[in-house]
Amino acid sequence: MLPTPRKFTVMAGAAEGPTRLNAFDNALLAAGIGNLNLLRVSSILPPNAEHIEKFEAVPGSLMPTAYGTITSEEPGTLIAAAVAVGIGRPDEYGVIMEFSGHCTQEEAARTVEQMARDAFRSRGRDIERVMVRAVEHRVQSIGCAFAAVALWY
Amino acid sequence: MLPTPRKFTVMAGAAEGPTRLNAFDNALLAAGIGNLNLLRVSSILPPNAEHIEKFEAVPGSLMPTAYGTITSEEPGTLIAAAVAVGIGRPDEYGVIMEFSGHCTQEEAARTVEQMARDAFRSRGRDIERVMVRAVEHRVQSIGCAFAAVALWY
Amino acid sequence: MLPTPRKFTVMAGAAEGPTRLNAFDNALLAAGIGNLNLLRVSSILPPNAEHIEKFEAVPGSLMPTAYGTITSEEPGTLIAAAVAVGIGRPDEYGVIMEFSGHCTQEEAARTVEQMARDAFRSRGRDIERVMVRAVEHRVQSIGCAFAAVALWY
Repeated sequence: MLPTPRKFTVMAGAAEGPTRLNAFDNALLAAGIGNLNLLRVSSILPPNAEHIEKFEAVPGSLMPTAYGTITSEEPGTLIAAAVAVGIGRPDEYGVIMEFSGHCTQEEAARTVEQMARDAFRSRGRDIERVMVRAVEHRVQSIGCAFAAVALWY
Repeated sequence: MLPTPRKFTVMAGAAEGPTRLNAFDNALLAAGIGNLNLLRVSSILPPNAEHIEKFEAVPGSLMPTAYGTITSEEPGTLIAAAVAVGIGRPDEYGVIMEFSGHCTQEEAARTVEQMARDAFRSRGRDIERVMVRAVEHRVQSIGCAFAAVALWY
Repeated sequence: MLPTPRKFTVMAGAAEGPTRLNAFDNALLAAGIGNLNLLRVSSILPPNAEHIEKFEAVPGSLMPTAYGTITSEEPGTLIAAAVAVGIGRPDEYGVIMEFSGHCTQEEAARTVEQMARDAFRSRGRDIERVMVRAVEHRVQSIGCAFAAVALWY
């Protein structure tokens, strides 16, 4: 198997850029994950994964990451992205949910938290706590909001 | 190199959910691959890969997976997803194709099988057999159909 | 960590196909990367990565790849895809940018080069050179243009 991640870091950021991809790139930089090769995953917290506040990785690393993101080219629009990590018993896997939309940070956070609770309910399991990180951004020209859970080692 | 997968499992499932992502998550659970970190790949069967009927993996594992999926929020709509594994000589690589659309399971299966045959034709190679798995789903509120080939070790 | 890639190859190709996915598959074959499992990454060149003109990999390998792609079903349409690798000091990471659109190869190349320059500017770093690869394709029935940077070992 590919090695299963043992650590996770939750982050969010938003930014403008001259193109959609540059705005995304700048949002990653704002979130603190800009100099890595994100491998998008769909999205389970491995059992016993340890929460690390501050993320460390060598530039260019392949980084399994669950993320929600939204980019908009409509000036004045409010955009938001959020992630939730639903955690049950420490020795069991958790569930990561991602959300993005045209809403406030609070709405995105509320939605994604509910999604994580529903994911636990689908599994017939009790959720003990939910970690949420969200960001909102008022688009000036081309803007991107990004929220992520990086899964590392 | 990252290690090349040596086993594969073909699966499909469909489900409803309170959001699009929860419907997708529930479809993964229905397919038997819900508690993993899917790494979406595009999509070759490694040479000598062994077909395993029943899939086993530790929750949270990073799982290279080729998949087709469709989510719909239109009640009454029929949606379908299918995958095909085109297999030639055992010591050569095969080709995986994915399809999803508004159609029956049979139409999805027929389409994806033809896609695998065309992929072999593009390579000037003979196809010996095709494994197909498909699923259809009549949307109630928010529904998702999902078909996949997991590539593992 | 997953192993960080140490080599990179830049490529582009375009093709027709009987379906969108077959067109994409054929464009990958035209680019020389058709028999691998692409893991799409977002998209940093690791420090000290070595440029290799000719790409070698065992079929079915998991291949971290940054790519831009566009598929069109409108006959007569011109489509293009391009990638740029922005390179600074050899011991520092570089930045990979991807672009695709309805334009010529030259326009795609110019755009993606500027995107790489802007990505360096966002990081407050000097860019020393940019490698660009682009392709254009006039759609006959269903066509795909694809440009990529494969990151390997």
